[in-house]
Amino acid sequence: MNDRLLRAARRQPVDVTPVWIMRQAGRYLPEYRAIREKVEFLELCKTPELAAEVTVQPVTRLGVDAAIIFSDILIPVEAMGMELELGDKGPHFPSPLRTATDITRLAIPDPEADTGFVAEAIRRTRAALSDAVPVIGFSGAPFTLAAYMVEGGGSKSFIQIKRLLFEQPKLAHALFEKLTQSLIPYLKMQVAAGARIVQVFDSWGGELGPDDYETFALPYLQRIVKELQGTGVPVIVFGTSMSTLLPQLVRTGADVIGCDWRIRLDDARARVGEGVALQGNLDPLALFLPQAELEARVQDVLRRAGPVGHIFNLGHGILPPTAPEAAKALVDAVHRFGRHAPVR
Amino acid sequence: MNDRLLRAARRQPVDVTPVWIMRQAGRYLPEYRAIREKVEFLELCKTPELAAEVTVQPVTRLGVDAAIIFSDILIPVEAMGMELELGDKGPHFPSPLRTATDITRLAIPDPEADTGFVAEAIRRTRAALSDAVPVIGFSGAPFTLAAYMVEGGGSKSFIQIKRLLFEQPKLAHALFEKLTQSLIPYLKMQVAAGARIVQVFDSWGGELGPDDYETFALPYLQRIVKELQGTGVPVIVFGTSMSTLLPQLVRTGADVIGCDWRIRLDDARARVGEGVALQGNLDPLALFLPQAELEARVQDVLRRAGPVGHIFNLGHGILPPTAPEAAKALVDAVHRFGRHAPVR
Repeated sequence: MNDRLLRAARRQPVDVTPVWIMRQAGRYLPEYRAIREKVEFLELCKTPELAAEVTVQPVTRLGVDAAIIFSDILIPVEAMGMELELGDKGPHFPSPLRTATDITRLAIPDPEADTGFVAEAIRRTRAALSDAVPVIGFSGAPFTLAAYMVEGGGSKSFIQIKRLLFEQPKLAHALFEKLTQSLIPYLKMQVAAGARIVQVFDSWGGELGPDDYETFALPYLQRIVKELQGTGVPVIVFGTSMSTLLPQLVRTGADVIGCDWRIRLDDARARVGEGVALQGNLDPLALFLPQAELEARVQDVLRRAGPVGHIFNLGHGILPPTAPEAAKALVDAVHRFGRHAPVR
Repeated sequence: MNDRLLRAARRQPVDVTPVWIMRQAGRYLPEYRAIREKVEFLELCKTPELAAEVTVQPVTRLGVDAAIIFSDILIPVEAMGMELELGDKGPHFPSPLRTATDITRLAIPDPEADTGFVAEAIRRTRAALSDAVPVIGFSGAPFTLAAYMVEGGGSKSFIQIKRLLFEQPKLAHALFEKLTQSLIPYLKMQVAAGARIVQVFDSWGGELGPDDYETFALPYLQRIVKELQGTGVPVIVFGTSMSTLLPQLVRTGADVIGCDWRIRLDDARARVGEGVALQGNLDPLALFLPQAELEARVQDVLRRAGPVGHIFNLGHGILPPTAPEAAKALVDAVHRFGRHAPVR
């Protein structure tokens, strides 16, 4: 197995900086769109054969150093008993959480019985890839999932979830607790199925100031990270607009902290110290630059990150209008400019 | 005149930390909604008598230390020749900029002839207030306005404006140049009408990484700041998710940098040095906390900011569902806990 990703996550030397792309199995790929013409998004998530197929697509086309299992952060939330709908603006919950009763009513799912299709997709992906590269498992973080559950979908000011935190903190903690108890076995199931590393997406965590992040997000992430590390896999925690939360992210105990493009990685390194790896952080829009400029930016990210403890990625998910050729040029540039002294 | 705001902006000692609230003249106030029942948003902006009336409302009710003129950052953009529409989701441009011709066609407005109603609203506000507190003038920053013009409204990934930057940088610079040439006289007009300080909202500036901010935003802000300071007024520059851009914001030459709630102000101070004042930075959602907790947060912000060079504000605009009583409690708390040694 190409284990660059796992080595970099543990800050071990690598021959070449590993690279993968958030949302690498997605709408920018014509082979993905061809499958989506036949099945809806949720159906694709729940059909292991097809989920494995789209998971493998970017490995084949781009030569990335890892396959992230095709799924959605809201899958375990649906399993908790919330109706999940698909719309033009992405998945949303038509009946968002509103009352204490809504929260009490949420189930803690049985991962295999309720979301076993994710495990099966991982097993099929591993077989299709003959374990050539590691499979990344993932989940959302409790705060981010709670935000979706309370807001009903994305939001501009996150007023509903933050009102819950500030007006009914005990209820908020009860929700985070239930999510944490659901996510730990969900992620462990993915590891048991063969995921070699997991990423926790705290996509909206950057909406909280440092004190609120410490109160409402950090304790739950610490438990998730510790439990997963107990299974032997490294853990990545990622969010956007979280540059001022880097000290809190270090305290999650994560092996790797994912950064968006808003911070230079040498600046991030200065803030996190040497005990953790960094992932990122090219602006997804940089894939629209002329190739020479894209390559210059890749070199700049590599230089700022240094050779040890860096997983190359975008600073957020790749956008649907991106040319697959640009994604390929990115991966090639990382592999070309990210060569290091041979690993002994 | 209560000149606390102007003194704090220049890092001079103040008796009490000054406070105002972004969007303080807005939908959370019943007296504002009563006027909006009679006139549309844009009509309100363009009717000096009414604009002055709503500008004064929060000064009367809350006792804030400044009145920010009621207007919209898109007013000068409409004057450049772009049709502006009102929708349920806020103002937007039904015909966004798409081609070089669209940009060439934009006019550089005559501020008095095209937007003189803003100056008149400032004059009427000053008269209504008998100059008891300073009036704040404002505009959007070139990047933020360009983002609206190219995206047509708000955006999630800002793909259109960033593609313009990355695919057609010369055209992007031509647009920023035209905006800069429009905004400088627009802001100078506000100063001539009696605005004693101006704020430049770079609301979306935090979407750019540090290098892109230096290339596409900083040079234009530097010119605007310098030209306005030449008229004798201090300048505030504000944006959200800009904590990693603080060094660039210092280089704008602004007197005051506005921070959102994502960064602790003592951390911000360490990054900006002693040469600039800071504005902010309570989470707007903190206004939903029980009063004792709100007051504790006010004290925390005051303590982190220190007594000199701090203008208290929220870290973003006040939200429509906020109780006016909470806004009043905030202002009172700042005035109570923000007392300093007497100014000699």
